[in-house]
Amino acid sequence: MRMYDCTTAPSPRRVRIFAAEKGLDLELVQVDLRAGEQFSATFRAINPDCVVPVLELDDGSHLTEIVAICDYLEAIKPEPRLFGPDAAGHATALMWNAKVEQQGLAAMQDAFRNTTRGLRGRAVTGPDGYEQIPELAERGLKRVAAFYRKLDARLAQAEYLAGDQFTIADISALVLVDFAAWMKVGIADDEYNLRRWYQNVSARPSASA
Amino acid sequence: MRMYDCTTAPSPRRVRIFAAEKGLDLELVQVDLRAGEQFSATFRAINPDCVVPVLELDDGSHLTEIVAICDYLEAIKPEPRLFGPDAAGHATALMWNAKVEQQGLAAMQDAFRNTTRGLRGRAVTGPDGYEQIPELAERGLKRVAAFYRKLDARLAQAEYLAGDQFTIADISALVLVDFAAWMKVGIADDEYNLRRWYQNVSARPSASA
Repeated sequence: MRMYDCTTAPSPRRVRIFAAEKGLDLELVQVDLRAGEQFSATFRAINPDCVVPVLELDDGSHLTEIVAICDYLEAIKPEPRLFGPDAAGHATALMWNAKVEQQGLAAMQDAFRNTTRGLRGRAVTGPDGYEQIPELAERGLKRVAAFYRKLDARLAQAEYLAGDQFTIADISALVLVDFAAWMKVGIADDEYNLRRWYQNVSARPSASA
Repeated sequence: MRMYDCTTAPSPRRVRIFAAEKGLDLELVQVDLRAGEQFSATFRAINPDCVVPVLELDDGSHLTEIVAICDYLEAIKPEPRLFGPDAAGHATALMWNAKVEQQGLAAMQDAFRNTTRGLRGRAVTGPDGYEQIPELAERGLKRVAAFYRKLDARLAQAEYLAGDQFTIADISALVLVDFAAWMKVGIADDEYNLRRWYQNVSARPSASA
């Protein structure tokens, strides 16, 4: 299976780690986001939202949205399970994944896209032009800090976000922490549980994917 | 099963419609969001994010995030299927649900929370205080209009968002259109496919849930 990827971007890395945990070999096709290749006519025909990752299925159709791509990979190669072990576990993995996306990654994205010089006039992913809003970048940084405190509290109760098993939610949170660190937002000194979890998940071989 | 609900809010309505389609009877407990009941110590112990819906499982644990709650309901009562018929269909339903959440509902929420007088200082859901950003409300309205054009284009190709079957993605989009209409954002005159779809899905008995 082919996946449209960009080595340096946080979003496709989530799928690369997921596939590495499964032992799935994806054929990666690089899309040069810095050069604006995502806005080319060729790529728009693949994904009108002009973002990666995109998974190309064997029938030639395209799947976007990370949770959907990972859901498909889980269906075609169920082991090792990355969406939890049973009905409640599956829902809990989805729940924590959604929290990481909405309260963590989206907030970090707000901080990144509303301040980066190269993204002026393109503050929202996709083909439409939106001006940057500096106050939204500030809000994003505050929200990430608040979310780290929640993650730390959760990880005081459990080994991994969804419980005692590593799931898609941990992959999303690992990518969040690395993305934030690249933006100079670190784990606070007293967030011991978040740091213990980070050292643990970032030591997995899949983290280098 | 008990669900913490608020009759007038868009988010819990998505789960009420989902449960109605399944024929599942949830015990609804009202949380008075206007009076700030979501910030009470009692409710914080149920959901520290201070939002509804929350599903209480039989073991007393709590599930938040709509996609996770619906995933659990699908697992315990698989028919009628609301996450698509097979692996690709399931992923496609999740994909469209994610697009509706990120490009539609989150943008509408930005418009709503950053202008409403009663939400000054509370521009983000949850317990933390964030000032309103009027430019973000304007951006949100533009993004919803852009997303309606995408929905219209998609619904020119398929009966429902994920294909020929009604899914969770249609429920999320129905709630988006009603939420937007309440905020005076309507379907454009030439968005025939979106209007045809809306008339169809809003005529289902579950829409009154």
